Amino acid sequence: MSRIPKPTVRRLAIYYRCLERLEQQGEDSISSKALAQMVHIKDSQVRKDLSYFGSFGRRGIGYDIRRLLGEIQKILGIHKRWNVIIIGAGNIGQAIARFKQIEKHNFQIVGVFDTDHRKIGKQITPGLVISDMSSLEEFIRQNQAEIAVIATPAEAAQSVADRLEKSGIKGIICFAPITLNCNIPVEYVDITVFFKTLVHSVVSQNYNI
Amino acid sequence: MSRIPKPTVRRLAIYYRCLERLEQQGEDSISSKALAQMVHIKDSQVRKDLSYFGSFGRRGIGYDIRRLLGEIQKILGIHKRWNVIIIGAGNIGQAIARFKQIEKHNFQIVGVFDTDHRKIGKQITPGLVISDMSSLEEFIRQNQAEIAVIATPAEAAQSVADRLEKSGIKGIICFAPITLNCNIPVEYVDITVFFKTLVHSVVSQNYNI
Repeated sequence: MSRIPKPTVRRLAIYYRCLERLEQQGEDSISSKALAQMVHIKDSQVRKDLSYFGSFGRRGIGYDIRRLLGEIQKILGIHKRWNVIIIGAGNIGQAIARFKQIEKHNFQIVGVFDTDHRKIGKQITPGLVISDMSSLEEFIRQNQAEIAVIATPAEAAQSVADRLEKSGIKGIICFAPITLNCNIPVEYVDITVFFKTLVHSVVSQNYNI
Repeated sequence: MSRIPKPTVRRLAIYYRCLERLEQQGEDSISSKALAQMVHIKDSQVRKDLSYFGSFGRRGIGYDIRRLLGEIQKILGIHKRWNVIIIGAGNIGQAIARFKQIEKHNFQIVGVFDTDHRKIGKQITPGLVISDMSSLEEFIRQNQAEIAVIATPAEAAQSVADRLEKSGIKGIICFAPITLNCNIPVEYVDITVFFKTLVHSVVSQNYNI
């Protein structure tokens, strides 16, 4: 597959969110201008982003919403189901485990792990019980888990990432405030970085996205 | 203050995280090369980013960690305390309310709001009780809240943002999957977008950050 720049991929995921809403509202097509207005960017950017997989917008009619959803789904890789495990059953780990939005998008949380014996065995949602880290490797194999969420303290994150990579996990979402050393893709979600970036915008009155 | 590009601001927040850890370990100085290795980017990028506020790295010695921390603190706007409120006491809202990392970084969660009467009055952490949305405007005024986290369903987010902006909130962290119409800075944290971006990297084997 061609290499699409990461900012474009992020925007595709955001267009997807808008298109889903439009489809639910019974809409059939949308212009690049209307889509651009929904996400507050320039329509030339929308057209450029969608051109990555061959433009099929028609002048005066716009893009076919269902077709566009299908194409973005394939590009993002969300046309198939992904089994997800969560490492660390603290506040963030448990919130992600309970976060139903993820399952709507074809991500199935199949396991949650922790080292704290007071947490192990506790049920988070029906059918989802916190497991001991010692069973991690076997669980990944048996459940074909491909995506892992690291929601451990920073100190534990690298050794967890090493175990995940060795066990065949293909990608990591890292909530721990650390940059990992590993050879599989990682998306970082450091909540404190969002707070700091926001207040910089506030103090500098720098509103650009 | 000069306009610093958003990707640079994000990297500054990440350098800050590394520098804090180095300071705790008793380090005095660091080279741009070592800092670059910690966050897996080029050292020329680190030098360029730090040049925004006047370079004070010294050849062969590097950057003074304490001084750099102070400078980044001022640029990001985290040298002062920010009072934060959370709107929506669902999984994500409650996880953020309990997330101690934020308070370490000078963000104080002072209030949590919901419209669900079964939740109102419930204590989340000692001293932090879920309040009724009807008291939002008065609370913001009395507690000098400046930052708000929107953790409501997408349908409610825009009307909440309107109320926040009118009440003097200066910046929003939005976990709801929607692009807001407002005149104050917003940082978007759509968890599902991170999952989708990750699996795109997995399917395309596109490892670049």
